[in-house]
Amino acid sequence: MSGRDDSVIYIGRKPVMNYVLAVVTQLNQGYDNCTLKARGRSISTAVDVAEIVRCRFMKDIVDVEKIEIGSEDLAEEGGRTRTVSTMEITLIKMK
Amino acid sequence: MSGRDDSVIYIGRKPVMNYVLAVVTQLNQGYDNCTLKARGRSISTAVDVAEIVRCRFMKDIVDVEKIEIGSEDLAEEGGRTRTVSTMEITLIKMK
Repeated sequence: MSGRDDSVIYIGRKPVMNYVLAVVTQLNQGYDNCTLKARGRSISTAVDVAEIVRCRFMKDIVDVEKIEIGSEDLAEEGGRTRTVSTMEITLIKMK
Repeated sequence: MSGRDDSVIYIGRKPVMNYVLAVVTQLNQGYDNCTLKARGRSISTAVDVAEIVRCRFMKDIVDVEKIEIGSEDLAEEGGRTRTVSTMEITLIKMK
């Protein structure tokens, strides 16, 4: 059976384990991969989530497929824009 | 002239622009690449540094070559260990 393949989880300010549980659930429900998307200070949380899934909960089952960084302009009050860094980490089930 | 190729900058709690200046200086002094290493909360600062160098100060000159994440055990008082996430971003001068 081929799995579904487009699970995305947005990382914010909730406790790390909430996101870990979400990723593990997605991968156990048939998704082949799961992409964590984060901005600004949440980027380090995204790395924590990826590492906890990869090294603890799904050790030898999941690997990091791809990591990308970028920038995004956010509109602020007063018409100004602020640039924030972004990161996407894609975790994939090993065959 | 072939450049030197093993510049490493450790990202900590200083202002982002300190690290940006360090990276730009290294790359302008003959290094072909520069690796940013960060742990824990500093990981998002490392992404900020990489993005500011790549998109603002050395646009069209520097690209992201490699991004790696990992975990490290830190010894704490009382003999316990704490696991922190790590990240390495390698910036490279485009030919």
